[in-house]
Amino acid sequence: MRLKNVPYAKEKINSSNYIINEPKLYRGKFKNLFDNLNPIHLEIGTGKGDFIIGMAKKYPDINFIGVEKYDSVLVRAIEKVEEDDIPNLKFIRADATWIEDIFSKEIDTLYLNFSDPWPKNRHEDRRLTSPIFLKRYDQIFKDRCHIVQKTDNQDLFTFSIISFNNYNYKINALSFDLHKSIYVKDNVKTEYEKKFTLKGMPIYYIDVEK
Amino acid sequence: MRLKNVPYAKEKINSSNYIINEPKLYRGKFKNLFDNLNPIHLEIGTGKGDFIIGMAKKYPDINFIGVEKYDSVLVRAIEKVEEDDIPNLKFIRADATWIEDIFSKEIDTLYLNFSDPWPKNRHEDRRLTSPIFLKRYDQIFKDRCHIVQKTDNQDLFTFSIISFNNYNYKINALSFDLHKSIYVKDNVKTEYEKKFTLKGMPIYYIDVEK
Repeated sequence: MRLKNVPYAKEKINSSNYIINEPKLYRGKFKNLFDNLNPIHLEIGTGKGDFIIGMAKKYPDINFIGVEKYDSVLVRAIEKVEEDDIPNLKFIRADATWIEDIFSKEIDTLYLNFSDPWPKNRHEDRRLTSPIFLKRYDQIFKDRCHIVQKTDNQDLFTFSIISFNNYNYKINALSFDLHKSIYVKDNVKTEYEKKFTLKGMPIYYIDVEK
Repeated sequence: MRLKNVPYAKEKINSSNYIINEPKLYRGKFKNLFDNLNPIHLEIGTGKGDFIIGMAKKYPDINFIGVEKYDSVLVRAIEKVEEDDIPNLKFIRADATWIEDIFSKEIDTLYLNFSDPWPKNRHEDRRLTSPIFLKRYDQIFKDRCHIVQKTDNQDLFTFSIISFNNYNYKINALSFDLHKSIYVKDNVKTEYEKKFTLKGMPIYYIDVEK
């Protein structure tokens, strides 16, 4: 992602009602934060928020948390909702590698949308579907581990399929062209996805659980 | 496959040294037929034989058997080798559904190349990677179950990935574009594959075992 410097970003984020500034305080207790027992869905790498905001509006009985490490994009997500009152939506500024320290046995579904493909072999462990990350996710899921991934990157997608398969995930759904598949009916687009689909590029999609 | 009527096909096939006319007599004893203990690799739907003939010539220490149900294409495979002496190559005229009656715990690797995609849902069981076929294959493998598939058909490929995954196969290799991947170095092309790659079409490739 090309990052612009947004000077007021940090201040704007910190003062938003949507941001959880000290997420580790809620570890294992995020249901208290939302003050209900609804399922909690998490997106890692939430970017400018189109997906998680769209999902939160579409499914008011599910709680959504978007995790993003870059202030300069997270601030855009927060600006999009600052006039709205969406009680089932929160954002966390964090790196994906901290995920185990933030959540404990409380997530129902994890979304990985257009994650950085880290194309070099030596960066394999940084891919969000690498075995090292799948192991981290084991600690955050409540019961069933459930991951939904979208990407435009073929290499990341094949890597993910193999990684899920080797980690004993079962495939619920798989498409090499989401927008021509039956799975598109409930789809909420990310910012990237809007651009890519306008250009006619196929979006790879996989839904797995274990 | 478009089938031409080849009037002399049946006679030509039956009189070839490459054909096993009564394969059920060798069930569990194909090593006797080859008179050695080399691994046995099987291709179901061998068509005009380019793949299995190429493999047999390339790997003389592996025994290869091509199964094909249509006389009119099988005769083309036999014509290609009638002047040669390839002791590690045999053909069987049979339908894939008979496979358990022909082999018993003696196959090392199974190749499924450009199988009929059977696109209609009601024909799902006819696809050579359907659970019903994977169950049949369990009976033919010696120890490890090892399947290598190539196809140009995206829907068959996604179906196969899900089917292998649900049947506890582990993915050894996966590519959405075999001829641009590292796996191409040992690849032997089928007739279809030669045509498709000339047109620049990607070939899907998967290698699984359990």
